[in-house]
Amino acid sequence: MYDGSEFCGWQRQTNQITIQETIEQAIFKITKENVILTGSGRTDSSVHAYGQIANFFTESTIPTDRIVKAINSNMVTSIRILEAEEVDLKFNSRFSSKKKTYLYQIYNNSISNPFYDRYSFHIPYNLNIDLMDKALKTLHGEHDFRAFMAANSGAKTTIREIYDTSINKEDSLIKIELTGNGFLYNMVRIIIGTLVQVGGLRKNTDVFLKAFKSLQRSDLGMTAPAKGLFLKNVKYDNN
Amino acid sequence: MYDGSEFCGWQRQTNQITIQETIEQAIFKITKENVILTGSGRTDSSVHAYGQIANFFTESTIPTDRIVKAINSNMVTSIRILEAEEVDLKFNSRFSSKKKTYLYQIYNNSISNPFYDRYSFHIPYNLNIDLMDKALKTLHGEHDFRAFMAANSGAKTTIREIYDTSINKEDSLIKIELTGNGFLYNMVRIIIGTLVQVGGLRKNTDVFLKAFKSLQRSDLGMTAPAKGLFLKNVKYDNN
Repeated sequence: MYDGSEFCGWQRQTNQITIQETIEQAIFKITKENVILTGSGRTDSSVHAYGQIANFFTESTIPTDRIVKAINSNMVTSIRILEAEEVDLKFNSRFSSKKKTYLYQIYNNSISNPFYDRYSFHIPYNLNIDLMDKALKTLHGEHDFRAFMAANSGAKTTIREIYDTSINKEDSLIKIELTGNGFLYNMVRIIIGTLVQVGGLRKNTDVFLKAFKSLQRSDLGMTAPAKGLFLKNVKYDNN
Repeated sequence: MYDGSEFCGWQRQTNQITIQETIEQAIFKITKENVILTGSGRTDSSVHAYGQIANFFTESTIPTDRIVKAINSNMVTSIRILEAEEVDLKFNSRFSSKKKTYLYQIYNNSISNPFYDRYSFHIPYNLNIDLMDKALKTLHGEHDFRAFMAANSGAKTTIREIYDTSINKEDSLIKIELTGNGFLYNMVRIIIGTLVQVGGLRKNTDVFLKAFKSLQRSDLGMTAPAKGLFLKNVKYDNN
């Protein structure tokens, strides 16, 4: 689990503090090994995670439950390891994953909220949840999401399957969840940026269907800010 | 409403960024007047507020609803003005207040939570909510809270009345609320520090009753950290 606000994303970079590097350094403190942590996916600067999964190889014999405590007590509190288990040598957090769920938070109120500032996208005008839900449902199934990615993402295939979506509003907080077999770079944030236009009556509920046909990025809305995005969980079986 | 994490409390100080000063500067930008903001009470460094109330005198003729938007758009997003109204010249946010409610958050889980780091007191061992509630109820009524304040607080009287308390746990988050006619300096944080000892079976549920008699600070627990404390609301009538 991490609050991504003060990190330059997941992936190790020169001269930038990243989540991967911070955890690798804590592991070094306890094992004296320079491990390489493989995450289920990179998260960008300011993106958060409840359930990121990562694996590393160690010759250390420290029991897994003690590893959790040891890493946490050697690391800043904005990242917490929740659990650890031993896995098969063939396991790869990234390539073994079967499905991922992302959560996106929108704070929908004329006045923003200091407590959601780092964790949501503030939209001051009223959003129509029913229309947003209708548009979300058109994403279900297998589609070519080529229009739904940042330029030069270099993905081998742009076909992805969305298994489920949900949208809920409680007080001023809108929570949107998307579950799929994988997501292209910026795909969730482009979906959300477009959805905000649907909710604000600036685009129709068939906007995603149109983009599946045109494959044009320009048919979709802006890329919503990173800070509202949370990697909620990653599953390694089909349940 | 403010996230107090990055401020040196409410009250204006030399060479420190405070909430009072930040709002006064935003008011100056729109009215060109050097106003003095009177808050319902000072909040310490890292203490948050949902419902702080403050008043100032202005000769400006900007309508109150426009003042809200104007101040907010001239100020950091960690402070938001929620509403403004014209009041009688005799009104004083501090001295006219009839009751205040404070909220304190405890994150009770063996592993801390990055998202509650700035907004709660992390207790890794299990707390008994029923015992804490029992102790909280002994606070109800009018008592001499002399034992419940930081040394040299210089309060004229240490008699205060507690109208209501509550404690609720949802997942790992414990929310404790206290409503009273006023609170001494550090009073809520000393109550919480003591309550944590009650919940951890280190003090009995009659600990507050004993302190009402002894009037000794040493009979109570530690002062809980500021970051878990929120000024929830301030009322100016008796309802």
